[in-house]
Amino acid sequence: MSTLENDRFLRALLREPVDRTPIWMMRQAGRYLPEYRELRARAGSFMDLCTNPELACEVTLQPLRRYPMDAAILFSDILTIPDAMGLGLHFVEGEGPRFHKPVRTAADIEALSVVDAARDLKYVMDAVVTIRRELNGSVPLIGFSGSPWTLATYMVEGASSREFARVKTLAFNQPELMHQLLSVLADSVTDYLRCQIESGAQAVQIFDTWGGALSSEAYREFSLQYMQRIVANLPREHEGRRVPVILFTKNGGLWLESMAETGADCLGLDWTADIGSARARVGDRVALQGNMDPAFLRASPQRIREEVGSILASFGSGSGHIFNLGHGITPDIDPDHVTAFVDAVQELSPQYHQD
Amino acid sequence: MSTLENDRFLRALLREPVDRTPIWMMRQAGRYLPEYRELRARAGSFMDLCTNPELACEVTLQPLRRYPMDAAILFSDILTIPDAMGLGLHFVEGEGPRFHKPVRTAADIEALSVVDAARDLKYVMDAVVTIRRELNGSVPLIGFSGSPWTLATYMVEGASSREFARVKTLAFNQPELMHQLLSVLADSVTDYLRCQIESGAQAVQIFDTWGGALSSEAYREFSLQYMQRIVANLPREHEGRRVPVILFTKNGGLWLESMAETGADCLGLDWTADIGSARARVGDRVALQGNMDPAFLRASPQRIREEVGSILASFGSGSGHIFNLGHGITPDIDPDHVTAFVDAVQELSPQYHQD
Repeated sequence: MSTLENDRFLRALLREPVDRTPIWMMRQAGRYLPEYRELRARAGSFMDLCTNPELACEVTLQPLRRYPMDAAILFSDILTIPDAMGLGLHFVEGEGPRFHKPVRTAADIEALSVVDAARDLKYVMDAVVTIRRELNGSVPLIGFSGSPWTLATYMVEGASSREFARVKTLAFNQPELMHQLLSVLADSVTDYLRCQIESGAQAVQIFDTWGGALSSEAYREFSLQYMQRIVANLPREHEGRRVPVILFTKNGGLWLESMAETGADCLGLDWTADIGSARARVGDRVALQGNMDPAFLRASPQRIREEVGSILASFGSGSGHIFNLGHGITPDIDPDHVTAFVDAVQELSPQYHQD
Repeated sequence: MSTLENDRFLRALLREPVDRTPIWMMRQAGRYLPEYRELRARAGSFMDLCTNPELACEVTLQPLRRYPMDAAILFSDILTIPDAMGLGLHFVEGEGPRFHKPVRTAADIEALSVVDAARDLKYVMDAVVTIRRELNGSVPLIGFSGSPWTLATYMVEGASSREFARVKTLAFNQPELMHQLLSVLADSVTDYLRCQIESGAQAVQIFDTWGGALSSEAYREFSLQYMQRIVANLPREHEGRRVPVILFTKNGGLWLESMAETGADCLGLDWTADIGSARARVGDRVALQGNMDPAFLRASPQRIREEVGSILASFGSGSGHIFNLGHGITPDIDPDHVTAFVDAVQELSPQYHQD
């Protein structure tokens, strides 16, 4: 077993006793940090940062120099797999990700093959190895991927979407074709996360950003079953430790019971779910991660502290809670408000771990 | 009591026996209909249609000439109240509603006063009277308003929003000011819906389009309590009949129990909620309206029919279900697919009403 100075995050994921509630933030390495914006301006594009292991490592470590986070998360994008499939990922300022070659026809789908992550996404594995070396056992490193459904929405729409008209038309009218696409993606995500784990990721999170755009039935058919397949096929132990899996479906609060049956160790909650109610529903089976509204970081430090206190109280006593936002931090947030957020979790949570 | 040829919709809202499940569609009068687009092109702007009672009536009746809907809904906009407050509502093509004078400061909020709906929104009342006359007792007319929270999001942001950064900053940092704004809006909505009822609306729906962007606690504080106040203060009987109230919070599926306690007669469900589970949670207290994914209207008529059958089966036997989409129909839908949708509800639902 590799030594780890701070394993609070990994212990809480397995609902083992901890001294306080661990914390990290989705998108903790990102545009709200002036040092990130500076490096990004020098490096070129967002993908230039992602594909350079030294720069990806530097960006990953930036938030840890400011805040005592209990985990680092690989700096990368959720859309690296379709990019490796040849779709041509690029970013349009203010409009988010786009693909040069979206997937629209049966022929497009049949032309796709499962990525060989060690070869096609070597830059990600190199970043993982570099970050682990630089972290030097201080805190664990989280790897991640987009979910098959979420990847498919971008691949079929070609860009961000509000209505998901194209991908839903495909799913509802040609479900077999949709399943073919999702199957290739599920196998690719499995290989990708396996490689990340073998390269040194000590926990992995599956980001299902758009599963919540589906009906309950369509969610099970087009998103959840593929995440379940990934969870079932991942190596769950590495370096003598269990590698926990976190499942995060934004707007998936209605489906927590089904999500808890996938074999994931932890469910990510967006801010619409009451974490106390969520724990009552599934807390004997999985840990819970979340769930302050990222917009609450715009409030005053005192109000942030109250909100943190309210979420901690809602979860209640005992392990199994990883504090986080309910979605990624936005670029407009004052870094000093993040200090107030992290300090509040550190100072207010020990009382819930006294048994 | 006014005579009504088809009172299936009103009966189902009160969970009284019906011969089949009634149906209407959110945004049933709208851009997917060629006759709407034609009239709109002749009339000028969207607000030109809304403010002309004869044209608003004509547009309201258009879908009823094509489809045997069980209710008509007033053609209007959810933002008429802030417009009447002087904020200057206008629409930017492809970007949705905007206000010339958004509400940003304490002084802006203090300058607002409760609308006198009979005077300031007379064009809406004239439309209601005109539509009731033209409907001539065939089906009931639904009136509506945006919820206070939803109106406030547009008033403070000045436009549609994804993050709600400004309005949430106000709510989280200056809750007293936010409550002052919401209180003026709640009283305005109450007066507006009361006037619609007195002018002839036989049921009313409160559209809380953006309540689902809040945390569970913030939803109760900033959205639900004001809708409850409106429900409590509305006249609930007119023309010798109960006037049912429908509460629709998009992405509010986690909070149905709280919504059912407001005194509303019916809860609108978006498509993410499983209607059978929703009925098990609250169905002994309220009727349920919904909830096919509007994107499913892009599927083939046969697949639409299967989806309708699946939702009917999920709700199960007995009254208390009003079929609808889970959100408004989008402009890209083929009107023939709406025929398949409405026919499926008519043909497949009687078996659930045989007791």
